[in-house]
This record gives sequence, C-alpha cells and structure tokens, in this order.
Amino acid sequence: FTGTESYSAGNHRLREQMELEVVTIGTELVLGFTLDTNASDIASALTPIGANVVRVTSVGDDEMAIRNAVTDALERTGLVIVTGGLGPTRDDITKKAVAAIYGAPLRLDSKYLAVLERRFEKFGQGPMPESNRSQAEVPAGAEVLPNRRGTAPGLWLEGDPGTTVMLPGVSREMRGLIDEHVIPRLGDRLQADEQTRVTRSRTLRTTGVSESKLADQLGRIETKIDPVTLAYLPGIAGVDLRLTAWQMPDESAQRVLDRAAECLEPLLGANFYGIGEVDLAAIVLDTLKSHRVGLAVAESCTGGEVGSRITAIPGSSGVFVGGVICYSDSSKMRHLGVPNELLDSHGAVSEQVAKAMLDGVCHMFDVEAGVAVTGIAGPGGGSDEKPVGTVCLAARLGSRSRVLKRWFPGGRQEVRQRSAQAVLDLLRRLAFEL
Amino acid sequence: FTGTESYSAGNHRLREQMELEVVTIGTELVLGFTLDTNASDIASALTPIGANVVRVTSVGDDEMAIRNAVTDALERTGLVIVTGGLGPTRDDITKKAVAAIYGAPLRLDSKYLAVLERRFEKFGQGPMPESNRSQAEVPAGAEVLPNRRGTAPGLWLEGDPGTTVMLPGVSREMRGLIDEHVIPRLGDRLQADEQTRVTRSRTLRTTGVSESKLADQLGRIETKIDPVTLAYLPGIAGVDLRLTAWQMPDESAQRVLDRAAECLEPLLGANFYGIGEVDLAAIVLDTLKSHRVGLAVAESCTGGEVGSRITAIPGSSGVFVGGVICYSDSSKMRHLGVPNELLDSHGAVSEQVAKAMLDGVCHMFDVEAGVAVTGIAGPGGGSDEKPVGTVCLAARLGSRSRVLKRWFPGGRQEVRQRSAQAVLDLLRRLAFEL
Repeated sequence: FTGTESYSAGNHRLREQMELEVVTIGTELVLGFTLDTNASDIASALTPIGANVVRVTSVGDDEMAIRNAVTDALERTGLVIVTGGLGPTRDDITKKAVAAIYGAPLRLDSKYLAVLERRFEKFGQGPMPESNRSQAEVPAGAEVLPNRRGTAPGLWLEGDPGTTVMLPGVSREMRGLIDEHVIPRLGDRLQADEQTRVTRSRTLRTTGVSESKLADQLGRIETKIDPVTLAYLPGIAGVDLRLTAWQMPDESAQRVLDRAAECLEPLLGANFYGIGEVDLAAIVLDTLKSHRVGLAVAESCTGGEVGSRITAIPGSSGVFVGGVICYSDSSKMRHLGVPNELLDSHGAVSEQVAKAMLDGVCHMFDVEAGVAVTGIAGPGGGSDEKPVGTVCLAARLGSRSRVLKRWFPGGRQEVRQRSAQAVLDLLRRLAFEL
Repeated sequence: FTGTESYSAGNHRLREQMELEVVTIGTELVLGFTLDTNASDIASALTPIGANVVRVTSVGDDEMAIRNAVTDALERTGLVIVTGGLGPTRDDITKKAVAAIYGAPLRLDSKYLAVLERRFEKFGQGPMPESNRSQAEVPAGAEVLPNRRGTAPGLWLEGDPGTTVMLPGVSREMRGLIDEHVIPRLGDRLQADEQTRVTRSRTLRTTGVSESKLADQLGRIETKIDPVTLAYLPGIAGVDLRLTAWQMPDESAQRVLDRAAECLEPLLGANFYGIGEVDLAAIVLDTLKSHRVGLAVAESCTGGEVGSRITAIPGSSGVFVGGVICYSDSSKMRHLGVPNELLDSHGAVSEQVAKAMLDGVCHMFDVEAGVAVTGIAGPGGGSDEKPVGTVCLAARLGSRSRVLKRWFPGGRQEVRQRSAQAVLDLLRRLAFEL
C-alpha cells in the first residue's frame, strides 16, 4: 500500500454513523505468531452494510487486559465485537472478562449443553469431554448465537455498558456467525435508520504498466471522480486501482462508483483487464473458449506456475489440455524440439528459444493457443548481459504469435509469479488484438 | 489456530518485562481493505530479544483518534511503536498527532531535507515534489532514523509521556528500520538489565496425520515438556507443532526447547519432516541429491502445482529435470503412454492410472525418481464412488514405487495443495524407507 489515497482529506473523513470496535484476543496475536485476519474480515464484511469499524485492539489471553480493552471500546462506541478466547482449553477467559463488565454471572445454558452433547454423539466422537462443558456456560442475559461449524457458540450481550458480541476465534466459525447472525441483526438496526450510509469500493485491475506511468496516464483524475477516491495498489499481478465511495446512501454510492469507473476505464486502455477479484487466467480462458481453441503451456523458469494458475480456475479443462515443464536444456530439445543451434547461439533464455518452445508445445498437444516462458528466476544464474529477472515470453493464438523480453524485479518467487502473469497477459493482448 | 495451547495458565502468564504497545494507523486497516501485517511483523521481530508487545491498536487516519490511541498506550507501557500515516499525501497526520502529545512543535530538519533532495536527484526523478518537503518536518527533540528504502524517515521521540517510535507503514521500509535501528536500541536497554528474559518458539512440522491422532500419539506430553508449552497448528501442509519457552533467560529458553524437541521427535515418528519454516519439497530435493537421481513429475488435477512447489526451491535444477501436465485423457495416453484400457476400466482417477503416469514420465525424462497425481479437485466431476477430493498418488525411487488413494477435504485449491504436499510426502517416505 503506497499511501497515495486521499481519504484523510476533510470532506471524506468518516462521519458519525454506526461505529463499532473490534477486540481480538490471543497471546499468539500480540506476540506475532499468528496474523490477525479476523479483525480485517469483520471490518470488510460490515463496511458495506454501513457499520464502520473505527478501532481494532488486540490483547493477549489475560483477563484484566481483555476486560480493560473491552470496557474502553464500549465507552467509545457502545458496540464491540470480540473474537477469540472462547475455546474449551483457555478457561473461557473472554466470557469471564466480559461477563464481569456487565456484572453478569456465568450460568450453564442447559439447552446449549444438550446441543453440544448431541453433536458429540452424532459425530461418533464418544461422550463429550468435560472440558467442553464450560462452552455451554453463558453470561446471564446473553443470547446464544448457534455455531454450526464448531463447539464455541457466539454470544450477544446487551446492557448498560452497551452491546458486546463474542465470537470464536477460528476464522471459519467467526465468519459463519458474522454472516448468519451479526449482519442480519446490525442490518435491521441500520434499516430502521433511513439515513444509513455505506462505504463501498470497487477495484479496477491493470497489468503491464507501472504505478507512476498509470498516474501520468490518469492525470488529475481525482477532481473528475470526486467524491469517489482513488488508491493505487501495486502488487505482483499488476497495479490495482481501488475506487471508494465514502459514507453515502447505498444507491448514491453505486451510482458515483459506476460513473468513476466509466471515467477511468477508457484512460487505462489495454492495461485494464477486469473488475474486482477476477483472475487474469480466467479472462484468458473465457476468451479462448469463445475462440474454441485448446491451450497448452511450455514452462522453464516458472516450473509449473503458469499451469497451476490456469488450472486453479474451475472449468479450465474445457480449454486447457496440458503442458511441459522443461527445466533442462536437453528436455527443451527432446520434448519440445528446440534446435540445439538456438540454445548454443542465443542461450536458453532468449526470445528465439521461447518461440521454439511455444511452437514445440503447440505441436505436441495439437492446439492453436499456447504460451512459453524461459528466464532466470535467481538467486543464481544471472550474468551482466542477462541478469537475474530476465525473462523471455511467447504466446500464440492461431497463426499469430508474439514474443517479448522483460526484466522483473524481486526475488525468485516474485520473478516467477510476475513471469506467469506477464505471459498470460501477452496471450490476452494477442486475443483482444491490443 | 485451534486454541489448544495452554499459555493462559497462570505460571506461563507474561511477567512484567520490557512491555510495549504497537499502534498501526490507516483507514484502510480499520475498514478491512488491507490486512495489518506490520503489527505482527514488529511483534515477531521483538519477542526474541525480550521486548513483549502486550497490545496492538489500529485506528484510521484521524488526528484525534491517533492522539488518543498513542496517549493511552504510553500511559500503560511508556513505550509505543507507531506505523503508518507518515507518507507525503496524508499530511503527516501521525507526526502532528504524536508531536501534540509531547507538546513538541514540528520543525524542518534541514539535514534530512538535503538527504531527500539528493535522493530525488540521484534517482533522476527531477526536483523533489513540494509534497515530499513535509517529510523532512520533525517534532522538536525527535531523532531521525534514516530510511534507506524510502522517503519517510523513522522518528524516535523521548520525553515525559514515554518513548514513541514512529515508522513508515510500507512493510519493507518498516522492517528495515526495525532491524537497523529499533532492535539495536532496545537490545542495548535490555542488555543493561541482567534479568532480560525472552520468549522463544520452535516449530516441528508433521504431515500425513490428523491433529487428533497426533494428540493421542503424544499423550500427556505437556507435563513432560514443562515449562515449554505446545500448540497444534493444523494447515494445508500438515499439522505444525509449536513449542514455546516463555519469559526466561535466552540460554535457558534454548535448553528447554532442545529438551522438549528431543522428547517430542521420537513420538512423531515418520510424520515428522522438519523444523522451522522448512518446505517438504526442499527435504525431498536434498534426499534425491544425495541419491544422485533425477526427478520428474506427471500432473493431472494439480495442473503444475507440484512442479511449481519443487522449482520454488533455489537449486532445484540440480535434481529436477521437468514434467508433463496432462489435463486430458488423450494427453495421458499420447504423452505418458497410459494404456487406453486402464482409462476405460478404472477411470482417469485410479491407482492404476497414477502408476502408469508415473512410469510414463520417468521413461520420458529418463529419470529414476518421479511422482504422479490424478484426482478430482472439484467443484464438478465427483461421483458417489469417487467424490470430489478423491486423489490417486504415485511415487518412484529407483526400482521401488508406491501408490496411494486418498480423500482430501476442502475446495478446489485446498484439494490441489493437499495433493501436492501428499505426493511429495509419499516420495519422502519412500526415500527414507518410512
């Protein structure tokens, strides 16, 4: 993240809407053993419905630290989502700490206990261990949010200090409870308020162009897309452009985002390839499907990365037939028919060899579309003439083909991933005649 | 994370040592647009030197929110590391907020301004934009920590409220400043204190065994490894076992970890494959190197994933020669010589076809070691007899080979990744005769 987004400007500052805080609990979080994905997942699930997380706090498995963090958060916003510390082996420390804030004693919920016991029977795990019994203990006045994915229930507690929602720390379980219970309940509250404003964002994906070049291309776009803001997010797949509409009625947010996207797209030209989470490999497969051609890959330095990217897409078998990983010179010659003379005179990392690999694999698999990659991913193998990061790419569609030599920055994995993306992009541009 | 670690038990609770807090700043963090990796990176860099992060707070780009969060953190621990909000486009909001806590006005640091201007000249980016000038503004009394990787300097501020260290939010720059400035300075403080205690952990990696089976195997290990604690971390690569020694002199920590690992390893048997961040593919490559054999892969459902895993390891070209991705029945026949009758009678996903693919690829690449995978990764293609997740694996080393049928849970990507790990593990067990 480059920090070029202008949402700290006064007129885009978060207005007072439904504000809440998230408190994540776990010594493994504060020690850096585990990355805290829960806070981010909760925020990105709630932002689109108009509930804004304004602060995230992580503390270890310590009763007083939890109690202090939740108390402070409730004082600021009156609405807190807490995750973690509800497992059977941690003495339900979160429940104890939060119950103390509300002055609510823990009581055994016999209904939930029965649910738990049935679950252990059903899955043939024998009688429920004693340690799980504590999971059916609930602060007086709390509502149980049934957890279909695990044994720790969610808990919804309202009272003088405000509303506290406790969710298990296991990501899958936490997300299930957010979708099935938290969003519907907060959504009801928000819908009762006609003024509900949401923050929405939309991402336009580009590849094959640098951040600074894109910025030049777009010029003073900020004024044209106002009140939408623009953030540049450079990554290995290319530069993503995130448009955000801040704190407005949902309909207006969608409208200003549509307008901003329409304003941006033509300026992006051939570098633009899709919206949202879309993968370039999926775009390429769709196009080839409409051309009714088969696809094969020949990979040297990427070693299977391109094939893996393609076959990660469900339904890729309708287009993709296979490929060859040729990690040695001899396999380039034997299996793809790359002439020995080309390897001798130009080297394995050359446009000539990339093209010969491409021709070879298309012939071998009898297909009309193909890509080939040969390069130096490092850390060894570089020279003055061909430093680490030098990669030659080739793509074919029918009778047309293109060959490209590129240099990519970064370590071994980054060079490989950038190469895979670039060769898919070469085929995309060929297919769309860009 | 399953929450089975027992470090909330009284005797392992964090003792009062050097405690600090981390405050990360960015509206993109609290809205869930960006995952906060900085807090986790800082904590995992500082824990081993005996400096414990006890709370992490994230707030948006809002001056009052930043000021409140840092003030509260200073009151609790007297030592705070702040990241983010130092970029030229965000009005240096972090600096303003923190400077206000110390009652220190912002002043232009002419020495750092000169450094910045030289940098822009040197990299041929023309004269420095006016917006970068504010990056040379420094709270009175703050020390500049030079940032070799970017334009925002780190700042070290000491005073009545305590010590605040401000670092840029860009991960690479932040980590550079932690290594080059923060760790040496905190290390000096800690070394002055003979009592310095550190928290260290060591991870033992296992694969091919479930968490519950491992727990049975280990029995009541906790009492034997005390004071070291054990956490089960199940993931796609297998179950990692994290041993942690809490808050003790470094020498003792190393000693009790050694002892705990020695106690655990024999109980793990063939499922144990390495310590720390080690990749199973690297273990397999090392073994094959000592056997002086070449390796080839035949992949159907994994589509290049196995080759990609192998070639991600630097130096893999000393062992790995290449492979074939055969995504269609016809390519299994044509290129790997899988007999049509096998495909007809047993289906593409069968132990017989996996074995034939293995034989074919070893012959094609003229190598003595190989692996083959064929399976149903989903979402489509499953049947009652062979549901999604059914995978057949084969591995060869010299004259010996093994074939295995497995069923893996999860979506398409998870099945593919579990398959790649399992086939590498099959070859490992073959090589070690496990």
